[in-house]
Amino acid sequence: MPKISLKGMNLPTSPIRKLTNDAESAKAKGIEVIHLNIGQPDVRTPQKALQAIQTFNEDVLAYGPSEGSLTYREKMCDYYAQHKIDVEPENILVTTGASEAIIMTLDCITNEGDELIIPEPFYANYDTFAAACGVKVVPVPSSIDNDFALPDISDISALINDKTRAIFICNPNNPTGYVYNQEELSALADLVKEYDIFLIVDEVYREFIYDDIEHVSVLTLPGLEEHAILVDSMSKRYSMCGARIGCLVSKNKAVMEAALKFAQSRLSPPALGLHAAEAAMDEPMSYLKEVIAIYHERRNTLVEAIGKIPGVVVSVPRGAFYCLVQLPVDDTDSFAKWLLTSYSQKGKTLMVAPASGFYGNRKLGKSLIRIAFVLDRQKLKESAAILEGALSVYPHTLKAKIIQ
Amino acid sequence: MPKISLKGMNLPTSPIRKLTNDAESAKAKGIEVIHLNIGQPDVRTPQKALQAIQTFNEDVLAYGPSEGSLTYREKMCDYYAQHKIDVEPENILVTTGASEAIIMTLDCITNEGDELIIPEPFYANYDTFAAACGVKVVPVPSSIDNDFALPDISDISALINDKTRAIFICNPNNPTGYVYNQEELSALADLVKEYDIFLIVDEVYREFIYDDIEHVSVLTLPGLEEHAILVDSMSKRYSMCGARIGCLVSKNKAVMEAALKFAQSRLSPPALGLHAAEAAMDEPMSYLKEVIAIYHERRNTLVEAIGKIPGVVVSVPRGAFYCLVQLPVDDTDSFAKWLLTSYSQKGKTLMVAPASGFYGNRKLGKSLIRIAFVLDRQKLKESAAILEGALSVYPHTLKAKIIQ
Repeated sequence: MPKISLKGMNLPTSPIRKLTNDAESAKAKGIEVIHLNIGQPDVRTPQKALQAIQTFNEDVLAYGPSEGSLTYREKMCDYYAQHKIDVEPENILVTTGASEAIIMTLDCITNEGDELIIPEPFYANYDTFAAACGVKVVPVPSSIDNDFALPDISDISALINDKTRAIFICNPNNPTGYVYNQEELSALADLVKEYDIFLIVDEVYREFIYDDIEHVSVLTLPGLEEHAILVDSMSKRYSMCGARIGCLVSKNKAVMEAALKFAQSRLSPPALGLHAAEAAMDEPMSYLKEVIAIYHERRNTLVEAIGKIPGVVVSVPRGAFYCLVQLPVDDTDSFAKWLLTSYSQKGKTLMVAPASGFYGNRKLGKSLIRIAFVLDRQKLKESAAILEGALSVYPHTLKAKIIQ
Repeated sequence: MPKISLKGMNLPTSPIRKLTNDAESAKAKGIEVIHLNIGQPDVRTPQKALQAIQTFNEDVLAYGPSEGSLTYREKMCDYYAQHKIDVEPENILVTTGASEAIIMTLDCITNEGDELIIPEPFYANYDTFAAACGVKVVPVPSSIDNDFALPDISDISALINDKTRAIFICNPNNPTGYVYNQEELSALADLVKEYDIFLIVDEVYREFIYDDIEHVSVLTLPGLEEHAILVDSMSKRYSMCGARIGCLVSKNKAVMEAALKFAQSRLSPPALGLHAAEAAMDEPMSYLKEVIAIYHERRNTLVEAIGKIPGVVVSVPRGAFYCLVQLPVDDTDSFAKWLLTSYSQKGKTLMVAPASGFYGNRKLGKSLIRIAFVLDRQKLKESAAILEGALSVYPHTLKAKIIQ
């Protein structure tokens, strides 16, 4: 039998989806599975976007420009201007979700064996994108003790070597919900300028900010024009994950020229998704305000309900819609599987993402799970009750911690 | 300024799109540019697909399964059965166009520095996909003298070494229009079994066959279950390039398992495109018959009209909708640019794809262009007249050849 690739063999399965078969089996047994594992928003896609789909009236569903239509990129410039981000259409390349924007970025800036520094825990799929591009992820640990703030800049600089091509963060962060502040971003900016490497920031949760803090985009940092690469997506902002429309934004001309070559090779972004995404931007600002208010309430409900469970520590997310929760169990991979295969409460159970998959160092995060709060408050309260019940009977619950 | 990647720097621009700026300039001067460069069909997308878009009635445009919905993959199995291809849904992974299917295939079967043997000329973007995956394309030349049939099998086997992971063909071929026959495919099958490597076949033009020949799919070759990987797309078949829906099909379980991991990392294929593609399959068979009949006529019209031009040699395509044409000029890159920048006939000119970009060995194909016959017959006749006029005044036309 012909051999497959090393990366194909060794790649870990996504922690977000790896228990899918167990979830399907639970459902086949008649158990309702509450999905806390995946960031699939339940809020309605903007009416303008849905209408645009229904009134699509081209005769031929044709390729569009590889970089995305000019009208769409102009609208994106207007949108960015509202966030004090000053860009032109030529700084924007429309991609098939943020996923493709990240892959293209790595294709454009790394050679085989190069390194990428990422604070961990990090969005697990970054690992797969890096593997696909032959890049090594060098994780730098952040801690639940300070809600996963940026690690000390000296910890990061200590990891930079000749192979380092970029520092990569997600802001607001998935899976931690941490929102990096001006000071942290300025420190990173100084560092990447000093070593002449890139700073890649995934800002797909830009608007999803709770409490009284402001989001700082990498593209607003002065003097960072050649070093900053922004990854973005319409998926979460407009609850249109299925559209698969994201973008890569940079003022570095060499990066944009290289990215265009990769973009041309795959011909064009999805035309229908782009059509819907363009219409979504016509939705009044009130849409997004209402959505953020909903998530804000959900965040509060979840943190309060989960925080009450004995032995459980919650890192309070300030942004995005994920929450890392430390459980009094020794291995959340086993626990998450057990929830689906061996536990139910009134015919219901939970699907959660074990957090070890969000760490480069797979020995870390063993007691953490990631919860996506993309369900209504009642479901979140119910989920907390199920989690509490499960922990009270789980054979491997660390009792010492529970009675703390 | 931070350095970009070697592949980002060295990657050639797509021959299909590299003259886009010149075409835009010509249009800005009021010249009508007839696009013979790109395989964007002008035929109507099936009514069923367009209706499905207009009646899309989900409230949330959500992620679908990473591998594509089961209902879609079941329908694809029925479709394949009509082509004597016996596959199950688990053998099919839905991708963002054939482009992503090829990238995923290479991710699954190659390590950095591995080699891929491809008869040249070949679809230029294969080069970019290979570069993105760190794979070296080893071209084996085919010749216009026999309409670009499969090179001698001994020429291919001579190139196989420890690094060779696969032989990759496109059948029917883009850009040559050649349709590989049973004998050629059997010879390739024996070869890949002997060396225990993969045979990847891009069959996106499966139905686009003219004259009295039959298409042989790689998945019908006996004993090749572990070695065969099929790349497919709905783009050309249903004139829905913008949907970005393709698939990777294989009975090799290790390949499909690895591919699923890459697929999960990018979450899901475009949901709206998939919705439209699924509906397209309900279109009566007569749709495709009519479409093929149209292309058949166009092929005949083009070959006849171009064949009459002095000094021009046409390779008659038996499949797909491209045609390689040998011109009496020394460098079709310059000629193609000149057509856009310095020539027009009654206010019209042509955009063609210079064929050197379809060769791994860039010294070859210098006198060839690729024409996509995706326009109506009148436009094709007009194009032939413009080409003839252009050649008669082009300063670098090889006069010796013209008076042959």
